[in-house]
Formats: sequence, structure tokens, C-alpha cells
Amino acid sequence: MGSSTIGRLFSYTTFGESHGEALGVIVEGFPSGFEINIDRIQQDMDRRRPGSTKLGTARNEGDRVRILSGVFEGRSTGTPIMMMIENTNQRSKDYSKIKDVYRPSHADYGFDMRYGIRDYRGGGRSSGRETSARVMAGSLAKQFLHSKGIRIDAAVVAIGGIEASGYSWNPPFPPPLFSPECPEREEMESLVEEARREGDSIGGVIECRISGVEAGVGDPVFDKLDALLAQSMFSIGGVKGFEIGSGFCSSKMRGSENNDQAIAEDGKARFLSNNSGGIVGGITNGEDIIMRLAFKPTPSISKKQRTFTSSMESVDLVIEGRHDPAILPRAVVVVEAMASSVILDALLVRNAYKAI
Amino acid sequence: MGSSTIGRLFSYTTFGESHGEALGVIVEGFPSGFEINIDRIQQDMDRRRPGSTKLGTARNEGDRVRILSGVFEGRSTGTPIMMMIENTNQRSKDYSKIKDVYRPSHADYGFDMRYGIRDYRGGGRSSGRETSARVMAGSLAKQFLHSKGIRIDAAVVAIGGIEASGYSWNPPFPPPLFSPECPEREEMESLVEEARREGDSIGGVIECRISGVEAGVGDPVFDKLDALLAQSMFSIGGVKGFEIGSGFCSSKMRGSENNDQAIAEDGKARFLSNNSGGIVGGITNGEDIIMRLAFKPTPSISKKQRTFTSSMESVDLVIEGRHDPAILPRAVVVVEAMASSVILDALLVRNAYKAI
Amino acid sequence: MGSSTIGRLFSYTTFGESHGEALGVIVEGFPSGFEINIDRIQQDMDRRRPGSTKLGTARNEGDRVRILSGVFEGRSTGTPIMMMIENTNQRSKDYSKIKDVYRPSHADYGFDMRYGIRDYRGGGRSSGRETSARVMAGSLAKQFLHSKGIRIDAAVVAIGGIEASGYSWNPPFPPPLFSPECPEREEMESLVEEARREGDSIGGVIECRISGVEAGVGDPVFDKLDALLAQSMFSIGGVKGFEIGSGFCSSKMRGSENNDQAIAEDGKARFLSNNSGGIVGGITNGEDIIMRLAFKPTPSISKKQRTFTSSMESVDLVIEGRHDPAILPRAVVVVEAMASSVILDALLVRNAYKAI
Amino acid sequence: MGSSTIGRLFSYTTFGESHGEALGVIVEGFPSGFEINIDRIQQDMDRRRPGSTKLGTARNEGDRVRILSGVFEGRSTGTPIMMMIENTNQRSKDYSKIKDVYRPSHADYGFDMRYGIRDYRGGGRSSGRETSARVMAGSLAKQFLHSKGIRIDAAVVAIGGIEASGYSWNPPFPPPLFSPECPEREEMESLVEEARREGDSIGGVIECRISGVEAGVGDPVFDKLDALLAQSMFSIGGVKGFEIGSGFCSSKMRGSENNDQAIAEDGKARFLSNNSGGIVGGITNGEDIIMRLAFKPTPSISKKQRTFTSSMESVDLVIEGRHDPAILPRAVVVVEAMASSVILDALLVRNAYKAI
Repeated sequence: MGSSTIGRLFSYTTFGESHGEALGVIVEGFPSGFEINIDRIQQDMDRRRPGSTKLGTARNEGDRVRILSGVFEGRSTGTPIMMMIENTNQRSKDYSKIKDVYRPSHADYGFDMRYGIRDYRGGGRSSGRETSARVMAGSLAKQFLHSKGIRIDAAVVAIGGIEASGYSWNPPFPPPLFSPECPEREEMESLVEEARREGDSIGGVIECRISGVEAGVGDPVFDKLDALLAQSMFSIGGVKGFEIGSGFCSSKMRGSENNDQAIAEDGKARFLSNNSGGIVGGITNGEDIIMRLAFKPTPSISKKQRTFTSSMESVDLVIEGRHDPAILPRAVVVVEAMASSVILDALLVRNAYKAI
Repeated sequence: MGSSTIGRLFSYTTFGESHGEALGVIVEGFPSGFEINIDRIQQDMDRRRPGSTKLGTARNEGDRVRILSGVFEGRSTGTPIMMMIENTNQRSKDYSKIKDVYRPSHADYGFDMRYGIRDYRGGGRSSGRETSARVMAGSLAKQFLHSKGIRIDAAVVAIGGIEASGYSWNPPFPPPLFSPECPEREEMESLVEEARREGDSIGGVIECRISGVEAGVGDPVFDKLDALLAQSMFSIGGVKGFEIGSGFCSSKMRGSENNDQAIAEDGKARFLSNNSGGIVGGITNGEDIIMRLAFKPTPSISKKQRTFTSSMESVDLVIEGRHDPAILPRAVVVVEAMASSVILDALLVRNAYKAI
Repeated sequence: MGSSTIGRLFSYTTFGESHGEALGVIVEGFPSGFEINIDRIQQDMDRRRPGSTKLGTARNEGDRVRILSGVFEGRSTGTPIMMMIENTNQRSKDYSKIKDVYRPSHADYGFDMRYGIRDYRGGGRSSGRETSARVMAGSLAKQFLHSKGIRIDAAVVAIGGIEASGYSWNPPFPPPLFSPECPEREEMESLVEEARREGDSIGGVIECRISGVEAGVGDPVFDKLDALLAQSMFSIGGVKGFEIGSGFCSSKMRGSENNDQAIAEDGKARFLSNNSGGIVGGITNGEDIIMRLAFKPTPSISKKQRTFTSSMESVDLVIEGRHDPAILPRAVVVVEAMASSVILDALLVRNAYKAI
Repeated sequence: MGSSTIGRLFSYTTFGESHGEALGVIVEGFPSGFEINIDRIQQDMDRRRPGSTKLGTARNEGDRVRILSGVFEGRSTGTPIMMMIENTNQRSKDYSKIKDVYRPSHADYGFDMRYGIRDYRGGGRSSGRETSARVMAGSLAKQFLHSKGIRIDAAVVAIGGIEASGYSWNPPFPPPLFSPECPEREEMESLVEEARREGDSIGGVIECRISGVEAGVGDPVFDKLDALLAQSMFSIGGVKGFEIGSGFCSSKMRGSENNDQAIAEDGKARFLSNNSGGIVGGITNGEDIIMRLAFKPTPSISKKQRTFTSSMESVDLVIEGRHDPAILPRAVVVVEAMASSVILDALLVRNAYKAI
């Protein structure tokens, strides 16, 4: 099983490069008989598109999702579902200049060391555009989870050190920033604009919450639900940190503060806090799953940078073209997609042992 | 492949409960012909033992590692290496009281929801003692990596909000805290003692550094090296946060600050910073891999807590017996073990394509 | 990892139904930097096509393979290679009659029991057309193996009980039957024609030989090379038997007859027989790998048959349309494809441990 | 996932060499809450033991199975179940002579080419004794399947070309040969004795039947149930052929003969024949699953044989000690074990999608 495949029962494999012919995914293990709403997948794809927000890049990709297998008369058949978009708006010439130059904090150098060759156009396989395939697969999973009363939503909660405060969680969150209602929202947007004007970029934090997952989902030891979420989130380009529940704050706390005490109420557990973020020992406790991801500033900036070439010469590099000053708004839907696929997979594994 | 198995080419499967008969591991895909030093595995096991530090619990386990297969005349044969320790110091009666009570922020409730049954003695499968099997496997991997010039070390760099400052990285780090030389060390130790006296516990941060891995190791998309590290680290009980390189700080930075510029020097790349933490796009760039993990305070505390039972009644719980006020000193070697196994696995996958 | 994915390091995932929009495959783990000859893949696809032999069905599919990712300037990049063909010659109306009828010895009933829904057009996912995706992946693997001096060839060696005798192995074998030069060839062809005239079908045996694989390839226990070959061959629709080396004959032999004695000659082993078929204990011994597969007669026949419907009524069924009286000629290239992918995968796994 | 691991949801990993310290298995994904009868596992182990039949080798191993984890108060907990036997009756000196000699049709040469080292004592990892670990895991699976009304039985149906005729399937089958009641049974036993007297060995055929599996179990494409059975059976040492249903005979048949026609009766399908052997398109149809495996004669014979050494010299070899003249009687329970584990795994995968 290769590195572009993820999942156990619900699994998928992606393909495609930024400026290749197409990008897409084969989804395996999706439940059969489910009526698929392709418009909702398209809506998620549109949320990922640069044109969807004035804060993104100017390139309009107009990605139309096609389903080429696994669906019959509108319903999933249980066999592989192949979805893809074609690349129609490629401007490959923009990239020929960086053919031999390793852009700072890009995957260029690593790919050359790993494979001895790389499709340098637009970052090739390491382009953020690769995530479009994840969105197709994850959006499908999300649809199914919605039908089971499970909600997965993500939002930008910090930009460049400015953190949203006092927000309530009322999805869906509006473009361009996809952040919750909060006093800092305007300032965060301004900061993105400022970074763009300066030819620079800026990082931030995305929060993701999942509600409606019953207790008892997930597995112990290596496939802990939070461990699989961590892997899936860290597989998104630009993620440099991940935490769940009280996260890094828990490292500053006492057990008596951090432990989630509980009472029994009407035959059900009611937790008095959720520092666990919904997962203990790798298994859900029925509370909301709450995660936060740190995104680094996008590495493509217009400012002059020092770097080296494949023939090991030092050069000064100025990356041309328009780039996202912050990847975060477009990454929101990718985070939802990854979370959705991990949850559906865990539910299926759990279900295998129910009523056997 | 079950949830107690991890890895692709170098993989292993663990077994055992806190108060069962034995704990151990079957290691697969370890290179053949390697002279195994079992003393070094034992030394790592001893670092994990509670008796190894005055900051740990009083229970002395005296775990002697036995290798039961896969080694012939002192060398690995390439076939499965089974290692285990027997449980000889069980005091199961201590735990009968919590048979039906779900301890706050422990895995008890989740296990019951997942499996409908649990070995409640000492936490059973969800006990920290499960990590001993990981240490055996990871210590073996570490030995091999050392022979290839790769070093993996971990240290406690924060306790309860007190962060080590201005330290240099000079492993090995001494017990009881296994932290680097720094002005805050004494204060950190005192904080652990204070938590113990109060019947409370305390969290902290472990840093792990890996040096000597060449550029080009790791894979893109889902099996990114940092994603696999994230999974492996999050699979350690009590971890609530993980970051690599500039981590959560990167979310506050501009691209022009965070990008790792570089120059070519003597035919080699010299990076001017290492905010990437040695991994870009899931693949190593030859710099040190630097990670940090947030551990929550151990959930076993002596203070009275509210919780519920399997018959859904509210109760007040006081957990008796001695417990680690901070899991961090004992987790240091576990972190090294997990890092070692992920790196060896990635090296083997990478090697499969060399000179084919 | 789903049931449409196969392989460890060299792996692939297929998609598509007989009368869906497209069929194809994502190949992972193919070595980078290899110059891909798409014409040779097309040639293999053409060998699988019904139009390629007068013995096949009349439907001309004209399948043109497109590579949509993973290849840059003619070379593999090491990232997923997506290949597909579009379905352009669908006559779905032919199949509406069998919507609710389970054709004898077809997968119809099983699919409905498994998934509760099936794409009944032309067999949907269980159509022989599914193998086209395997041919794309396997043909690519074969190309690579050829460059390493490894040959994989298959041929029809029996039809309906008439066995080719006294043949030498001189690939390529010619259409329409793709059998070696032998006295029985004409009779075998006549038998196929006879079955066609009678609206019936006929089974047979395909032999596959692999030469040029060095000793030491394969793994012990469950991933024995012959076990993985057995799985891959049995995954081809219509295969009901598989044997390697002396196969079922070995069950009638004494050890003194069946054992492959050997001598050392010029510093190399020379085996005096090859009853092992090139594999002992799951690992190659350097001799040719020789396998045979039994194919049942294709289940689609024009003769009246008794069967039942999804509403559990008994019916008499006459399947209309033209069908292959023998699947074997078209399966030859599928067998080569499956063998190629298993061998490349085993070589990569073996290579991971060389010179580490 | 290494080559000593098999399965998807129900999976296990084995360890141990013929003359190492112990052999055993870690079973993952076994349903929780099941009352385990260790005596029945021991009984299956005893059926595999050489002492259990006068036709086997003289070495009495007296293997006592210990369960070291995953069972609490007699019930499975859902966590890894570790079972092992210790080697107590090793006579390693017997084997020092063959340290550098590659025994014909043994795995010795392949192991040395693969690993550069091998535990030569008694065949090491490639010894038939490795299968004891499979029996532990498979016997556990069989127990569970029995509780669901599924039966798995195997029997010797041919020895050295003498085939059992006209037998009915009335398990359990008695030692020493574990074959069904048939006119040829005495002759088969005599043939084994004759081979033993001559210092030779002899092959044969084992049949395995599984009843009680409902229709709709198994998966299409690569994980077809028959493909996974083929892999699992071919992973047993000495197996050179595998067929299901009409198997190799189907290659001689017309579709009109081989197709399984059916009628609906009392709301259920009643098939008029079972040439499919219970599986069509990789999925069960509710009929009995019927397989046959060809075993080669055991390669250890006392007769003088030509072979070569690790220093590439030709030698004449006479293997001393007592050996099984036919592995078949002892392999019967191994075949049942492999079948049981594959069926349980497929049932769990299928169950994952039920009532989700």
C-alpha cells in the first residue's frame, strides 16, 4: 500500500500533479446503496478553490468533479468510486525558471533527493492542488456521516498570532476567511491583505470540531483515533503542529484541572469539561472531538530569498506570480475532508464487531 | 492489520496488559545479520522503569527482556524477533475497587463502550505499561540506526509550564528528569515533587531530535515522514499535542521569517535556519529532525473526583496507591523508541528504490 | 486498504465497471526515472481486446490508454501513475433483461447479497472488462522487469481437455489462441469454434513462465512468493485452480522423484530438475518460475438454463448477445500482468534490505 | 506489515523457529466477550503433533499452549491475544551437519540468498513446526465460527496417486490418516508406511469443506474470498496446487456442464450443482466451500541425493534422523486453521457494512 493511500476499511488513493492532466481519487469501502449528492461534493470543491475567496490566488480553476465509477443510478454500489477533475488552466511556462532551483521551504529539494526527478510545474505532486483529491473523498465521507447525525466543521481561529476570542461554534463559517464570528475577524483579514501587499505570507491556526460520534469509536495502541487524526492532519502540506482537547495547554496543567470529571444523568454520562477533546486512550467518549492545527506561512513569497540549485550553486530567488498569502481559508475544507474520512473509517471498523 | 501493529517494512505488533502474564512484541522486517546487543535494549527498558527515577512510582518491576525468536548466534536472521517481559510483581487486588468505576480521563469508559469488557487491573491494555513493548522494538531499531550514524534522543524540556531555556543538546540526559542542563531544572523537579505531595499530577513537554538522516527519506502525501511521526507519537498515551520545527510558532510568523533559506557550500546545501524541523513536504532535507510533544498530567490522582459507574451512577472517586505525578521522565525513552521505528521503516522504504 | 488494491511496495488500485464511464488504475511505488513506452502498454491492452482474435466476442472496444499522472517528460516520477480507458461502445440496453435475474455461475447473486445493489450492465464490476485495469498496471511492471532481464510470458496450453504436448517455450505466442506450437493447436481452436457454434463455452489451462529472477526473492510464511502469485492469479475471474512446478502431479510422487537435486558448476548452482517451479519455501531459487491456471468455461452461454430472480422466483434463462466461448486467449495477457506486478513488488521488498 | 502477518480485521503475526526458544502468535481483531475454550485449541495442537499419529515422526513435542494476553476471566477482551508454546525437546546437534549444505527442495538455499544467514537447526523458520502458531490462531477462529453455525473440516483424500472414492463427508476424521471412510484407506496408509520403510516420502491431496457461511461474504477483485483462501493455503509449506469447486476439471468442461443452475424454493436459492465450490466472483453463494490442496512429498528423505554447499561445492547428501514420510496427516489441522482465519476475517469485513 503506497503513500498516496490512506485508511483501513474506508480507504482511498489519490493521483495527480498541479499541472498534469488531471487529479483525482479512487475511494474504496464506501457503504453501498447511499444516494450520492454530487452537488455537495462540488460545493466543497468550490470552497477549496482559489477563486472562492478574495484572499486566495487569482487563478480560477473551475474544477468540475466527475464520478467515473462506483455509482449506479445515483447510488453507491460498494465498488471503487473514482472521482476526478481535469486540469484546464495550466500556465506551465511560469515555472520553467524554477526547474533547477530549490525554493526555500518547498518540497523541491526533498523530491529530487527522493526520486531523482520531479515535475517542477507548480510544485507537481507536492502542490497544494493535490488536496483537491482528498476533498472529493472526504466530502463523500462527510455526506454519509451527516446522514448518521455526525457533523464535521472547521474554521480559521488564528492568523499570524491574532487569535479569535470568545467565539461560539455556529457553522457554516463565511468566506473569505471561514472564521467564526469574533472581534478579531477584521484584523485577521487585514493581516492577510497586508502580507499579500508586502509579497509575504502568513500562518495561522484551524480548529476542527466533530459532533455526534458515539462513545466507543476508535482503537487502542497505534491506531488510536487521535493518532490517525494526527497522521491525516499532518499529511496536509504546511501543517507544523496538531493538538487535541487541551493540547499544549495540558502540558502546563495539573491533573486535578485537566481531568474531565463527570456525572451520570438520565442514564447517560455528562462530562463536566472536555479537556480530552472527545478522545481518551484512542477511543471516543461521546463528547465533541476538538482539534487545532498550526499552519506555517505559505513558502511561496515574492521577497528575495537565498537558496541553491540542483548543480549546488547558491542563488538569489524571487518567486514570481500570484500566490496565496495564507493557505488557511482554502485549507478549512481540506481539514474537514481528512477528519471525515478518518471518522468514517473508524466507524466501519467499530461496526465490524457490532452484532457479529 | 490490527491496531497493535505499526509500520510498513519495519513493523511490529505488541501484546500484553498491565497485570496479565507478559508483555511483548513481534518485530518484523528487521535487517538480517545484525549483531544484537540485548544489554542496550535492557538499558532502555530500565530507563522506562518506575524504579529508575526517584520521581516515578514505587513499584519495581525488574523487567528482564527475553528474545525468543529471530536471533541466531547473536545475529538477527531477518525473521520475526519476539521479545517479551513477564509480569512478576502484580498486585491486582489494588484495582478491584475500580472494576465498575470509570476513572476520569482514563480509557476505562471508552474500552467498555468499544469492547463491552475490559481487564480493569492496572488499566489493562491501556496502561502505560503497554509502552514497554514499544521500547523493546524501538530500542532495537535505534541500535541499528546508531550503526548507520543516526542518533535519536529525547529530553524533558518543560514541566507544568516551566520551560527549559538556553539549553544545548548534549545527550544522554541524566535522571531523574532526563532534561538538558538548564537554569530551570531544579524548579521543574520541585514542581513534580510538589504535585506528588499534593496527590496531584502535572504535564509537560518532551523534545526529540534525530540527526544523521540524509536528505530524501520519507514519502509524499499520506505517509509523509512527519505524518507518520505524528501518528506514532500521538499513539503514546497522554500525548495531546505534537509539533515539528517551528510548530505552533510558525502559525504566528511571516513566510519571510519562517522559510529556511540556504546556500550551497562545498557541493552541499547549508540551511540558514531549521524552522522546517528537517522535513519538508514529508521528506527529509538532511537537517536535524526536531519535534515536541505535549503530555497531559497523568490522570491518576489521589484527589477526590466526580465520575460515574458502569451502571450509570454518579460517584466520588479517590484513586489509591502510588502513581507517577508526571509520566514525562519515563516517556522519554518511549518517544525515542517510536521515533526510531518510524525512521528505520522510512529508510527501508527509501532503500527499496535505491539501485534497483 | 480495499479489495481493489493489491501489492506492498509496488501496489495499485483499480476502478471501473463494464458499462460505466471509464476503467483504470492508480499505480503506486513504481520506480522513478524510468522511460515509459506507452505503445507497449497499448499493445498489451490490444492483446486483451476481443477484436484481437477471431475467437473472441465481436464487440470492438478500441480502448486507448491515457496516462493522466505520474509521468513527466516521458519518465516516471515515482508518484502515482494513473492510467485509464474510457468506455465508448456501451450497449446497456442489452442487459436490462437480466436486471433481476441471477445468471448461473455469474457473480450477480453474490454481489446483490454483499451490497444490496449492483450495476448489472455487462456484469458491472465483476465483468472481465475489469481486468483491463490490471493489464495497464501489469504491463508497466513488465516493461520495467524486461529492462532488468526478467521475462514473463503466458500461453494457452489446454482447451477443453485437449492438452498441448511436446511444446517448447518460444514466446511470443501467436493469436488467435496464444498457444505454443504443438500438434494439438488446430484441434484446440476447432473446439473453441465448436463451443461457439453450439452457444456453449469451454474451459482450459494457461501456463505462465518467468525467467531471469535471481535466487533469494520472496518472503517466508504468509507472503511466500507462490502464495502471492496464487492470490493474484485466483483474483482473475474464472480461475478455479492454480499450481506451481510439479503441482498436482507432485501429490502422486515420491520425494526421491520430486526433489530437485543439484550440483555446483562454475560457482553456481545447477538444478537437475525444476519440480519446485522456481520457488521453495516462498523464495526463488533462480530457476524459471512455472505456473498453471485452470479456467472454467465462461458462464455466459446461449443455452437455456434454470435460475432464480431477486424476488426468489425460478425462471428459465437464455442469455442473448455474443460472448467469448473461451476466455483463455484474452486472459493470457492478464496472467502476464498479474505475474509481473507480483514479481516487481517482491523485487522491491527484497531490494529494501540490500546494501542497507 | 511483514510477511509473518496475515489478515485484515482478524489478523495475526507468528514467530518462532523449529529449535528456538518458543513459537507463537499474536492474534488481533478477535471479537471481544467470547468465552475461549483453551482445551479445544490444545486438541487441535495435538492433532498437529507428530506423536498424534503412528504415521508421523517419533519426536514428541508435548506442546502446551499458553495464553499470555487478551483474555480476562476466560473471555476475550478484544485486545491482542498472545499464545505460544515453548520448545523443550530440541536436539540441535542433529542438524550441525547440514549447516553449510542446501538440502534439495528445502528452503535452505533461498533463505541464505534472501537473508545471508539462517537458523539451520531443524529448518529454522522454514520448518513445518512454524505452522503450530497458525493452528493456535486458526483454532481460535474456528471456535468462534462454530458458535455461529459454521463448520470447517479437512481430510486427506489422496496419497501418492491413490484417491479416496465414494466417500461421504462425516467429520471428524480419525487418525492416523485423517481421511474419510473409503475403500482405499488401508492402501493409502500402507503406501505411507512403504515410503517410510524405503527412506522415501510421498505426496497427497487434502480436501477442505466449509459449511454454514451465508451468501454475500467475500469481496470482489483482488481480495476475492477464493483468492485469499488460495494465498493462505499456498502459504503452507509443501503445497504445490490449489483448486476450488470443479477446479482443474472445470478446464475440461463445457459451460453447460459446469454452470451451477438453480431454482428458488421456499424463498431461498437451491443450487442444482456446486461446481463453483461455494464462491462466485469472490463472494459466497451460500453453498459449501470446497477446496483441494496438492502437497508435494516431504523433501527430507534418507536416500542419497546430489546437492551443493554454501561454498558452491557439489556433495552427496544423506539426511539422517526420522522424518514424516507424508506431511498430510499433520497438515489437516493446519488447513482447517488457515481456512478458519480467512473466513472469520471475511465475515468481519462483511459485517462492517451491515446495519451501518
